[in-house]
Order: sequence, then C-alpha cells, then structure tokens
Amino acid sequence: MTDHQRLETGADLRKLVERLYPLCRSITGDGVRRTLEIVGEHIPLEIHEVPTGTQVLDWTVPQEWNIRDAYIKDTSGRRVVDFGESNLHVVGYSVPVSRKMPLAELREHLHTLPDQPSWVPYRTSYYSPTWGFCLAQETLDAMPDGEYEVHIDSTLDDGQLTYAEHVVPGEVADEVIISCHTCHPSLANDNVAGIAIAAAFAQTLENPHHTYRFLFMPGTIGAITWLARNTDRVDRIKAGLVLACAGDPGSLTYKRSRRGDAEIDRVLAYVLADRAHKVVDFSPYGYDERQFCSPGFNLGVGSLTRTPYAGYPEYHTSADNLDFVSTEAMEETLQTLRDTFAVLDRNRSYVNLSPYGEPQLGKRGLYDSLGGRSDAKQAQMAMLWVLNLSDGEHSLLDVAERSGLPFDSVVAAAQALHDAGLLKD
Amino acid sequence: MTDHQRLETGADLRKLVERLYPLCRSITGDGVRRTLEIVGEHIPLEIHEVPTGTQVLDWTVPQEWNIRDAYIKDTSGRRVVDFGESNLHVVGYSVPVSRKMPLAELREHLHTLPDQPSWVPYRTSYYSPTWGFCLAQETLDAMPDGEYEVHIDSTLDDGQLTYAEHVVPGEVADEVIISCHTCHPSLANDNVAGIAIAAAFAQTLENPHHTYRFLFMPGTIGAITWLARNTDRVDRIKAGLVLACAGDPGSLTYKRSRRGDAEIDRVLAYVLADRAHKVVDFSPYGYDERQFCSPGFNLGVGSLTRTPYAGYPEYHTSADNLDFVSTEAMEETLQTLRDTFAVLDRNRSYVNLSPYGEPQLGKRGLYDSLGGRSDAKQAQMAMLWVLNLSDGEHSLLDVAERSGLPFDSVVAAAQALHDAGLLKD
Amino acid sequence: MTDHQRLETGADLRKLVERLYPLCRSITGDGVRRTLEIVGEHIPLEIHEVPTGTQVLDWTVPQEWNIRDAYIKDTSGRRVVDFGESNLHVVGYSVPVSRKMPLAELREHLHTLPDQPSWVPYRTSYYSPTWGFCLAQETLDAMPDGEYEVHIDSTLDDGQLTYAEHVVPGEVADEVIISCHTCHPSLANDNVAGIAIAAAFAQTLENPHHTYRFLFMPGTIGAITWLARNTDRVDRIKAGLVLACAGDPGSLTYKRSRRGDAEIDRVLAYVLADRAHKVVDFSPYGYDERQFCSPGFNLGVGSLTRTPYAGYPEYHTSADNLDFVSTEAMEETLQTLRDTFAVLDRNRSYVNLSPYGEPQLGKRGLYDSLGGRSDAKQAQMAMLWVLNLSDGEHSLLDVAERSGLPFDSVVAAAQALHDAGLLKD
Repeated sequence: MTDHQRLETGADLRKLVERLYPLCRSITGDGVRRTLEIVGEHIPLEIHEVPTGTQVLDWTVPQEWNIRDAYIKDTSGRRVVDFGESNLHVVGYSVPVSRKMPLAELREHLHTLPDQPSWVPYRTSYYSPTWGFCLAQETLDAMPDGEYEVHIDSTLDDGQLTYAEHVVPGEVADEVIISCHTCHPSLANDNVAGIAIAAAFAQTLENPHHTYRFLFMPGTIGAITWLARNTDRVDRIKAGLVLACAGDPGSLTYKRSRRGDAEIDRVLAYVLADRAHKVVDFSPYGYDERQFCSPGFNLGVGSLTRTPYAGYPEYHTSADNLDFVSTEAMEETLQTLRDTFAVLDRNRSYVNLSPYGEPQLGKRGLYDSLGGRSDAKQAQMAMLWVLNLSDGEHSLLDVAERSGLPFDSVVAAAQALHDAGLLKD
Repeated sequence: MTDHQRLETGADLRKLVERLYPLCRSITGDGVRRTLEIVGEHIPLEIHEVPTGTQVLDWTVPQEWNIRDAYIKDTSGRRVVDFGESNLHVVGYSVPVSRKMPLAELREHLHTLPDQPSWVPYRTSYYSPTWGFCLAQETLDAMPDGEYEVHIDSTLDDGQLTYAEHVVPGEVADEVIISCHTCHPSLANDNVAGIAIAAAFAQTLENPHHTYRFLFMPGTIGAITWLARNTDRVDRIKAGLVLACAGDPGSLTYKRSRRGDAEIDRVLAYVLADRAHKVVDFSPYGYDERQFCSPGFNLGVGSLTRTPYAGYPEYHTSADNLDFVSTEAMEETLQTLRDTFAVLDRNRSYVNLSPYGEPQLGKRGLYDSLGGRSDAKQAQMAMLWVLNLSDGEHSLLDVAERSGLPFDSVVAAAQALHDAGLLKD
Repeated sequence: MTDHQRLETGADLRKLVERLYPLCRSITGDGVRRTLEIVGEHIPLEIHEVPTGTQVLDWTVPQEWNIRDAYIKDTSGRRVVDFGESNLHVVGYSVPVSRKMPLAELREHLHTLPDQPSWVPYRTSYYSPTWGFCLAQETLDAMPDGEYEVHIDSTLDDGQLTYAEHVVPGEVADEVIISCHTCHPSLANDNVAGIAIAAAFAQTLENPHHTYRFLFMPGTIGAITWLARNTDRVDRIKAGLVLACAGDPGSLTYKRSRRGDAEIDRVLAYVLADRAHKVVDFSPYGYDERQFCSPGFNLGVGSLTRTPYAGYPEYHTSADNLDFVSTEAMEETLQTLRDTFAVLDRNRSYVNLSPYGEPQLGKRGLYDSLGGRSDAKQAQMAMLWVLNLSDGEHSLLDVAERSGLPFDSVVAAAQALHDAGLLKD
C-alpha cells in the first residue's frame, strides 16, 4: 500500500473529511465517483458501475442524476438561493427546470425548517420525478412576494450506479464486511466521517484471519444492488458493521443485528463495556443494516454510530457540517473499530485434547515459563479457564466473559496451550 | 339474534345480575336451569342434560339436588333461620331432615363466621351426604338453649347435570373458549357477574376469525363432564379464559395458563399493560382452569378475574351481594374481554414473500397511499417491522411488542402488505 | 457400624479435629495413613494404595514423601525453626538436606509472610525437587547473620499414594460422591474440619435411595488418581459435593458445578435459601471440583465451603489453627449436608396416571384422611401441585419451588398419591 496516502493522525482524518465534505453526492452520479477517487488515494478500490435499469432484487437501478448549477433569482437578478453555496439547496434528484413563477406558486417547491430558521434541510426525491429547493426559513421570510426565476441545470438520464469495494484477504475466506453509505452530499457526520474512518481502519488491517470487505455504496439501492450481485457470497459473511454518524460529539451507540446474539453483537458489547456507550436493539429503520438484516439474509451485521440515526437536531440539515464532527470523536470511533476486530478476528473455539481432569501444566513448562512474570497468576488462571471451557461450544470471548480476564490474556493462554498440543482448533 | 334482549349498557348488565342473583344454584338442579333460561333470553343456548351416574373422566355425575324450603324454628314457632330469606342458609346438597333437637346437638350442623359475626357463610357438601345450616354468628349467639325444629325440604335423586353452550362460528374451526361457573347460589361477584359479562360479550362477537364457544357450567364436575364429552374437540381449542369474580371493585387479575407462555398469556399481558392489573402464575387452585390446565389437557387457558379467587373477605359469604359488585367494574371487565379477543382474533404469523432486502414499497403505492395521513410515519414503520419479522416465526403480536407500535397499526400494515402480494398467511 | 465411635455432638466433632490437626499430611506418606486410621475409628474405610509411577490420566503418581525431623539451628545449637513445633515449618516434599550455610544463602530457601509477621506460611513443591523452610517474619528478623545448620530428615522414594473410600449402599446404583482433600498438614479449616464433618455425616446416612461414596484423598493428584481408576463408574455419579473450609466462622458458600444447573446446584440453592449464604459460579480454581468438572467429565459436582478457597487471611498459614474453626460453624455445615441430601435423596419425577382433569381425591380417602390435621390445607395443595406438575418433566423440587410449599409436604403428597395409584415413578 506504499503509494497510498496514510491516514495516521486525527489531523489526517479531518483533512480527508474536509476534502469530501463539499462534494455533491447522491445515489448516483459524478459526486460519488469523485468521492471514491479521493478515497482511492488512501486505499485501493475496485469501482463497480451498474447500468440504469438493472433489476436488483425487488428494485431497479434508477437513472443517473447529475447537476451543474441551480438557483432562485429575485427580480433584481440576485441569487437568493444558490446551489453554488451549498449542494443541500437543491432537492436530490430534482429534474431540470427553468421558469419564472410567483412566490405563491414557488412555495410548493420550497422546504424549510421553521423550528431551526437558520438551517437548511436535506431532502431528496429519488423515485418520483419532481424538483425543489431547500433553504433557511429566515431566507424564505425575507423573500418578498413577486416573480422569481428558478433554474436547475440537472440531468436525469440512463447511466450507472457507482459503488466501490476494498478487500483485505485473510487466512480464511470467511468475510467481515464494513459498509458506509456514500449518497449524502454535504453532511459531515452523515456520512463523510464514516467513510474516512473506514478508510483509515482499512489501512491498518494486516494479515487478518478473516477476509475484510469494505463497501462504499449509496444507501438502500446500493446495498440492494450489492446484495443482488453477491448473493452467492452472502453465506461467507460471518459478521459486519454498518458505519455511520461516526464523528459527532455524542457517545458511541451500537445497534444489534436482527439476530440479537450474533458474534458481532457479543463482541461489541464486550468492547464497548469500557467506554461510554449505548446498545440498542435492532429495528428495521436506519442505515443499510435494514438490507443486511432483512429476513431472507438475516446476517450478523450490526450498526456502529455515535449518536444514532436521526437522533440529533443537526441530522439531515446544514448544521451537520465540519464544525459538528470532532476529531477526538472520530479517533475514538476508529479505535473502537480496531478493538472490535482485534477481538472478533482472534475469537474462536478450541477443543481441549486432554479433557479428563486437568492436564499437568508443569511438566510441559507452562508453569515454569511463567515464574518470572508479574502477570503469572493471570496467565495461569487464563490457561485453566481455556482448558475448562474448550469443549468446542465456548469461544475465547465466552472464556473472557465468564472469567473476567482480559481477552488478550485468554488469547495468549490459548496460544500457549495450542503450542503445547493441549488444544486443537 | 333479533329476538334476544340486548345487553348494551352497564344498566343492562346490572339488571341481569339482579335477576340471576336470588336463584338457588348448585352443581345440579332447577336453579341452574332457571339461570340458563334467563341467560337464554339474551343469547341462544344449547342446553345439555347429563344423567346421574354417567362416568366422566375420573368422576361420576352425582344425583340431582333440589330444595323447596328449609328453616330452623324456635319453640315459639318463629323461623330464626329461613331459606326463604337467603339460599346461603342451607348447606348445598343437604339431605332432607325434619326433626326436633336441642341446640347442643344442632350446633354440629351449624356454620358461622365468628370473625364476621353479621355475615352468613357459603358451604356445600356435594360428595358426602349430610345436612347443615349457615347463619350469622350474631344469630347463633341470640339463640337460647332449648329445642329447635329443623326442616329441610330437599330431594337428592337420580336426575341430570345441566350445562349450556353458546357457539359463535368463526372463519376457522379453531376454537376459543370462555367458561363461567354456574353453581354458586346468591353470590353476586362469584359468579353472577361473570355470567352476565360473558353473555354481553357473546352478543357483540360478529364474524370472528376463531370459533368462540361459551360454556356455562357448574364448577369442577361441570368442566370435567364437558371435557369428558368433548375429548375429540379439545385439540381445536387454541385459547381460552375462565371468567369469574368479574364485578368487584378490585383491579383486574390475570392468572396465566399452566404453560405460562401460551398465546392467551401473551395477549392478556399486552392488553392489560394499559390498565391497573396484576398477572399471577398458574396454580392448581381456583376455578376451572384447574381442569383445562390439568397435565393431560394442558390447554392455553388462563383465568380472568378482578380480585382473585378467595382474595377478598366477602368471598363465599353473604357479603358477596349486589352491593359488592360495581357497574363500572363490570364494564371494565367486559371491555377487557373485547380488547383481548380483538387482539387474539387478529393475531397471526405471515411470511414475507420478498424477504431479500426491503421490497420497494413506493412502486406499489404503499408510500403514496399514506402521504396524506397524519399517521403516515407510524404506518410506514409498521410496514417495515411487519416485513422484517414476517419469517413465519413471529406473530403480529410479536411485531407490536418489539416495535412498540399499536397492535391496530401492525394489523393494518399487514393487511396492506398482504393486499399488495408481499405477505402470505 | 456398632464398633465405630459415634460423632454425635459438636464436642465429638471438635475432638476429632483436635486429633487430626497435628499430623503431618501431604499428598503421600504416613501422615495420610495415620489420618485415615483415625477416621476409620468412626466409619469403615476401604484404603487404596497406588504405586509410584502409575500413570493416571495426564499425570503420574509421584514418589512417596516422609519426614521425621527438620530444623534450622543457630551457632549456639538452638533450633530457631523446628519441625517438631509445627509441620508447616518445612516446605512439603522437601528433599533431605544436612548442611551449614550462611544466612544470606539460606534466605533463598526461607518463606515468610511480611504482611503477617507472626504467622508461618504453608508451602509445597511436589513436582520440582527442592527444600525449604517456612517461618514467621518475626523469627527471620531476629536471626543474626552468620552460619546456620539446616537439617531435613526426609525421604522421597518410590512408594504409594494413599486414599480411602467409604460407601453407603443405596436402593439404586446411582451415586452421590462427597469428597475431601487429605493432603494438608496442620491447617484446621483446610481441611481437617471437612474430613471430620464428612465422617459425621456418613455415620447418619441410613438406607439412602442413592449410593453414597465418600472420598478421602489428596487434592488434585488424588482426585485424578481416583478418576483414572474409576472411569467406568463415573457415569453413575448423579451428584456430588467437594467439602472444604467447613469450620470457619464465615457464612456458607456454595460454588456451582460447571453445568450451573445440575440437580445439586438447584438443591443447594433451595436448601441454603433459609441460611446466610452465598452462591458463586463455577471457576476452574479451588478444590477437586476442578477435576470432577473438567470438560471431559463435566459432572454435577459443586463445592460447599464456608468462606471460600483463599478467601480469608488465615488461609494457608499457621493461623488456620484450632482456634480458627468454630464448633457451631461445623455443626451448621453438617446440618446443611444433612438437609441437602435429605432433599436430593427424595427428589424425583413422577407421572400422573390420571392426567385428564383432576382425579377425585375424595373417593380415595385423600380428603377424609386429612380432615383432622391442622396442616390439611397445605397437604391438599401439595397433592394438587404434585398432580398438576407430574408430567415426567418436573421433579418434586420443581413442585416445591413453584408452589412455595415445603419440600417435606410435597414428598408426603407424592407418597400418598403414589400409594393411591395416582402416580407412577
């Protein structure tokens, strides 16, 4: 990965977020392509382009949307609402328009947040052709009656849906997926931060046990497209995380998979125990866990966020901006990913090959070798626990939970016992 | 049901209770027949008469008991205890007697409540032939020593055990049973109120999904007789409630079936959550849930009461009178029955026919159709929950419980999805 | 058992503890033999001698250790440390030594407890040949530099490992084991008290249902030896207790079997509910439950102690002396054993032979027979509960737990119903 830019510090993360933030992403189009190009400077990506009209599960890949300019001009010719200032000003997938109309008529195409008069909302209309503008309530209040010129220079044509994969091969073909949505325009927490953190985590994954597959794709239709094209691979997915809202100042939230007791659910509960956090049950609303956890797939995929989906006032508004995401928060989310997969990747079940009574550890040097270490007692307890629970039905995480010993100690004990011929995989 | 008198208001319920209260019911006899005649003015009943000596499971139908008069006269000829005043004064199933005897000898046949000196207890002796009187301790205390004339004009002869059924046919042969005991004489809460409420509920059941079978029969021997004669029907019983003590001022109590997690148990927990209530575990004591939940049958039948069996001082005394039952309480019990079976009758499990990813609701008009409704968000969430959990293993009640959405919304969502071809039964 | 001395009173227990306390036990040797001889004065014992070198599971029976004398003399010839005063002064399994050496060199062989300067620690080195002395820190502090004469008159030769069994035959071959370790020298609570209490309990077991096997054997290697020689008998073991630390003033502690829900676990929870106690989960550290609960055997064997293993400051020191064990505590532990096995021995599952509806108890005299008893109501409830739950899947302990009735009442009800032909085993 020598020719890729490293994301080593919080400052590196923030810089990537700042580059991605201004792009006008949607579920298709050049904003997504440019986003993936930038991510591709940090990790190698395989880009997939899926033509409009492709049948994907119950859905159809829509036309591709691109936009160059849009505005509302008053009679003086001043742009009172301008796409150039913020891509949130245009309703996503707006069809082209170029007309004059009185404010009364225009109002039906305007979206504001009366309770947050200075914020611009984020709206889309992917599947029913229309057009619209989003603006601050304050701006609307200041617009006198009269004629306005509305202009949206967009195209909605047959094209492609674009997504990307980054794969880190493991010792086994069993897969872990980490998925981020790439369809939101200038919303920093939702989901530019998640994209950046996933890329940073991918960089540091070296020789993992499982194969790791990072998915950068538009929400809903992207996940559905990927699932439709990878139905034969789904069985390999042993665990996964949907990563979003990864940089806000709130504490971490883990949303369980639909199964509720999948390995990923247990790992997150274990890893988060030492941090301020919440764990919530699965619900069929939120991000692409909805697709991975649909009843036909029912994968062991949960969702990691900070403040959850729609749980903060800034959600889907212009206030989800670069000030809203904190470098410290992004660093904590990244560390949580590392801790999570450090556990999951080493978690497995062994079988004690000397299960009748305790094996004599002393004659194998497993006591002696510990004599001089200050953590000898903990190491010894870890060996006894691993031996006792290694009946093929308990994983090392089970051992850590039941014993109260650190997972690292349990792994070290299992390794020592395995090396001594007392355990088999 | 045009020629049956409607029980529409609390006043109607109370009037029926007042008519039934004075009758001298027992496990057999004309008091039961007259009771069923009056109930039959409100709902059609099929009357069953089972001859004395019929073997029913481990029991035998006993002789039929009838009584015309009974009294204790003092030496002045005054009736100090008079069946005409209250049928509780005679021990149920008393054999005939006509003798004079001194108070000392008579005392062995007298039953009082020393702790409640003005109340008359209720006693029976169905299976060992004897006779006796029940009276207030105060009355006994005022009786001077001396000779008394005791007279019980009863008959205990081969005859019939009488019970009744009212059936409301459903779309399916699967049955719900609602059972009330009809063997208690002038005890208003136990069980005249229950009989009246069951009749009122039966009147309003229209075109239910399940077949509803209302059973009006004497406690223990009646239920055993019915079970013996309907062994081949027992498998059809999907749920049931034994209704008793339905009008006292205490809050509602649900006693779980022996299974503890039968559908009826879950429905009652759900329906009662919004009311003051208690839920208690099954115990093999109380009303006819004892028989329905004997281990050989082990039916999903619980018991709904207000204050439970033997849980109030007035229980089995003359103080369980018309003043003790409250119209408001009876109305609440009736409404609880309606709510319970409104849930149970619509509860079922569906299978999502598009289980891989979420189906596209928009193209089926399932978003549009909601656009103008203020509960659109709730309806949409209900559809997503139903789709996600409809794997054949979760019922709509499961969906309501897990989602926190109202059961009615969940049913509406399931219906809409079913109509759109996305669910099958 | 006529020619064995009865252990009837707390004073008898204490006297036995006082006789056993001074003996120098280890995992082999004459101290163990003498201990078993004394126990054999109270209950018949079958003594087993297993030769050095015998392969037992993953272990090998070690050489036999015996010791006659040991001391450290100062230059004046005074014994500053003397085995004759306390056998704790010599590290268990010390090889013979007879040398003069300066204190600086001697220190490497001396063990003290700096935090408890007046106590002598207990140390052993069974499997790596060395020698050493244990002494009070105060004693060491008072030893001037200079030459000392060290002398240990021990032998470590091929010999035998000695253990004993006492069996009380039951109606069935299914076994209950009660196991005590016999390898600790002058430590009163750990485990002289346990040995004495086990012997006292064994004396009072008469005609039990299960066969009871009492095991007096050295910790770890003894249990492993027994398991190796009884592999074919292990399947018969239905329950067991490892008894240790049975006389200290702390409250009772039950450590669950590895299974966690074995019958013994449920019985102890039930029996201890009326006493101050703790219940803790299994861990693979402590006494010989480690071996019985190794994953290959996974027996329903828990451990009963007062203050648990290593849970008190006096543990494995000279302060675990005769003053540390309380007669009252030993009596309570003994009574707990009796109560435990009084439940376990009578616990079983019946099948109701009249499971459809309640059987008519009156015609079988099961009501009448209770008429005159003040506990009639409780006896009647117990019969109804036993009938209701006797479906082959609930034991009498289940009935007692669910009904809240005393286990004795439940057993009496089951017996009455069984005698009436209403239950079968």
